[in-house]
Amino acid sequence: MALLVQKFGGTSVGSLVRIEAVAERIIKSRRQGHDLVVVVSAMSGETNRLIAMAQALSPEPDRRELDVLLATGEQTTIALLAMALKARGQPAISLTGDQVRIHTDHRHGKARIEHIDTTVINQALARGQVVIVAGFQGRGPDNAITTLGRGGSDTTAVALAAALKAEECQIFTDVDGIYTTDPRLEPKARRLEYIDFESMQAMAALGAKVLEVRSVEHAGRHKVKLRVLSSFAEHSAGTLMTFDEAAPQGISGIASCLQSVLVTIKGLTANSEQARRLLEPLGDAGIDVDILCSTDDASNGLVFTVPLGDFGQALPMLQASAAAMGELDVLHRQDVAKVSVIGNDVGIRSDIATITCGALSDKQIEARHFLTSARRLTLILAQQDMVQSVRILHQTLIGP
Amino acid sequence: MALLVQKFGGTSVGSLVRIEAVAERIIKSRRQGHDLVVVVSAMSGETNRLIAMAQALSPEPDRRELDVLLATGEQTTIALLAMALKARGQPAISLTGDQVRIHTDHRHGKARIEHIDTTVINQALARGQVVIVAGFQGRGPDNAITTLGRGGSDTTAVALAAALKAEECQIFTDVDGIYTTDPRLEPKARRLEYIDFESMQAMAALGAKVLEVRSVEHAGRHKVKLRVLSSFAEHSAGTLMTFDEAAPQGISGIASCLQSVLVTIKGLTANSEQARRLLEPLGDAGIDVDILCSTDDASNGLVFTVPLGDFGQALPMLQASAAAMGELDVLHRQDVAKVSVIGNDVGIRSDIATITCGALSDKQIEARHFLTSARRLTLILAQQDMVQSVRILHQTLIGP
Repeated sequence: MALLVQKFGGTSVGSLVRIEAVAERIIKSRRQGHDLVVVVSAMSGETNRLIAMAQALSPEPDRRELDVLLATGEQTTIALLAMALKARGQPAISLTGDQVRIHTDHRHGKARIEHIDTTVINQALARGQVVIVAGFQGRGPDNAITTLGRGGSDTTAVALAAALKAEECQIFTDVDGIYTTDPRLEPKARRLEYIDFESMQAMAALGAKVLEVRSVEHAGRHKVKLRVLSSFAEHSAGTLMTFDEAAPQGISGIASCLQSVLVTIKGLTANSEQARRLLEPLGDAGIDVDILCSTDDASNGLVFTVPLGDFGQALPMLQASAAAMGELDVLHRQDVAKVSVIGNDVGIRSDIATITCGALSDKQIEARHFLTSARRLTLILAQQDMVQSVRILHQTLIGP
Repeated sequence: MALLVQKFGGTSVGSLVRIEAVAERIIKSRRQGHDLVVVVSAMSGETNRLIAMAQALSPEPDRRELDVLLATGEQTTIALLAMALKARGQPAISLTGDQVRIHTDHRHGKARIEHIDTTVINQALARGQVVIVAGFQGRGPDNAITTLGRGGSDTTAVALAAALKAEECQIFTDVDGIYTTDPRLEPKARRLEYIDFESMQAMAALGAKVLEVRSVEHAGRHKVKLRVLSSFAEHSAGTLMTFDEAAPQGISGIASCLQSVLVTIKGLTANSEQARRLLEPLGDAGIDVDILCSTDDASNGLVFTVPLGDFGQALPMLQASAAAMGELDVLHRQDVAKVSVIGNDVGIRSDIATITCGALSDKQIEARHFLTSARRLTLILAQQDMVQSVRILHQTLIGP
């Protein structure tokens, strides 16, 4: 009898029929003797519906009030799921982030969890109830409703698993685990039974959409055992993220991302104090920056990517800093794709770069930028070469 | 500069356009120098949408969880209205029932307000914010979300006005006040500028749909000045409910109700201990019973009406009690209508009953039951006679 935290995302609870299927699945886990804390997202489409209402009233809706609005999405799901469980005779109780006491900082729309009070949850578990918690939301310092940033419900699940010292944090999604690459790009992609934490972190950061990188990092800090499972395919054990030093060596997968903007700032090197000052505001704004230039390559300048969705916010920040530093030019292009080979032996196998470049140049594919580090090898390519590159690298490095 | 509580119902906030109109109206009140606490309902149709989802999962959804679900309706409205105000430069803050600390008892779906903590609201008012409060909801003894019974948002507004000692509690609705009768039945119905509390209470109890009787009674207990206004017609002062002994004498109006079931229990009189025991469970269940037989009329038995919507719940209770009291027969019929003449001189003007009966019998309309008391005269009629009776009595007693 273990305590499990299970998280079901928006697609998994996307309709009343799906909510009933999730209820059945929870009851099966319960019959296996587990104590369960279940975190749910808003039903798929609901958050977008709410945002559209807010934007009809104001192009930039007040952030405090937007959180009050968005929090209704998860509140709806917890109520419906708890009802579905109780209608099946399974004792259950729904709790909002506020009711649990998921204390966050004050940053509406991208709040960080500071402390979780486990009292209410533990009391409910002791009564034999399945505890259904609204993901993505918490209570700010002034008792305002806050919502977490990207990956919000995953973050809630991981934070609860850490606070409750749960045996596993199971993330149910629409795929049955972490694959060696996106199966939509390469049908021969294989599910991994295990993945080590650092490779998972790189996969999430570099394009795998299954888990948000902040949730993976959160799990890493608290050594939470994360398992990715399908809420649709019942008989797959999914992928377990391990912290084991004895994790199998090898290449975990090929990640890819079409939604990056490549930025170059000539005359700066990555390790410089100026680079740090230039990029700091982006970090403060929660924008992920992936630095690509090697530190000894001053002629290329500072080269990095920014997610396309954040670029509108990032560009004025970069231009302001660059202007203040002596009229540095900020060059950027959006017609690029990023493909990364990820694994815990990428950094120690000197042949991987050679194999990768050879396999691509055989097909006349040229990389514009190229970075290797301990667990990754990242290429910047023309967008139209992305899918073919993923398939060539998967076949060459992972197998036919 | 006065403190006003303003309440906008579901139709008044039924669309984003309507919410923006309410925001403009609030800003006008604010410019007149008033401090404002605004109570809102769910957007019209929203509560029904949520109930339909719940009932798709369970014919009798768990009541605690149904409250969690329904509370999202008002939470959505407070967020949207606060956004609309802030987008117009008007400082505002939304608060759920829980955030205000509207403490209720534990009865999910029909909770009663026990205490309101005014600290959070007063702090916001002191900051110059318009305070937007979610109606219809509170916090139960175990910190669960509760919803109030019928007339929920009106009750919230009245309770807040009492707790905050507001100058007026203004109920904005889709009609511009209390009318001498339902204008859909009698186009010559006139708006009342003032109505005394007891007449308002009788109007609400006997069929006027503008205010729920519990909200009126609540206002009466706390001497809250209630004003009914239209959220659409801006230049009407509506109807003010007064507690003034010097209120104008006269007939306030004609109320009617098609949705009543007439119940007769032979062999009981209204003032008996048995009648009290028989009706007590209905009162406990929150069902309004209107006793019609005069106490000295034992041959008729105990005669009363029950709202049609509650009759399915009331009948088994009545049958159980009547069986326990010695096989008393419970007779009931639904093909009746109730028409009442209401005013603070009905009880002192002995001619009113004569005029009423004469006017109706001129048109061959016969009353099956007939009750007079201090402020009302109530007739039970055949349903098909209701509209004509309302028009005849309005013309005869109130004027052409």
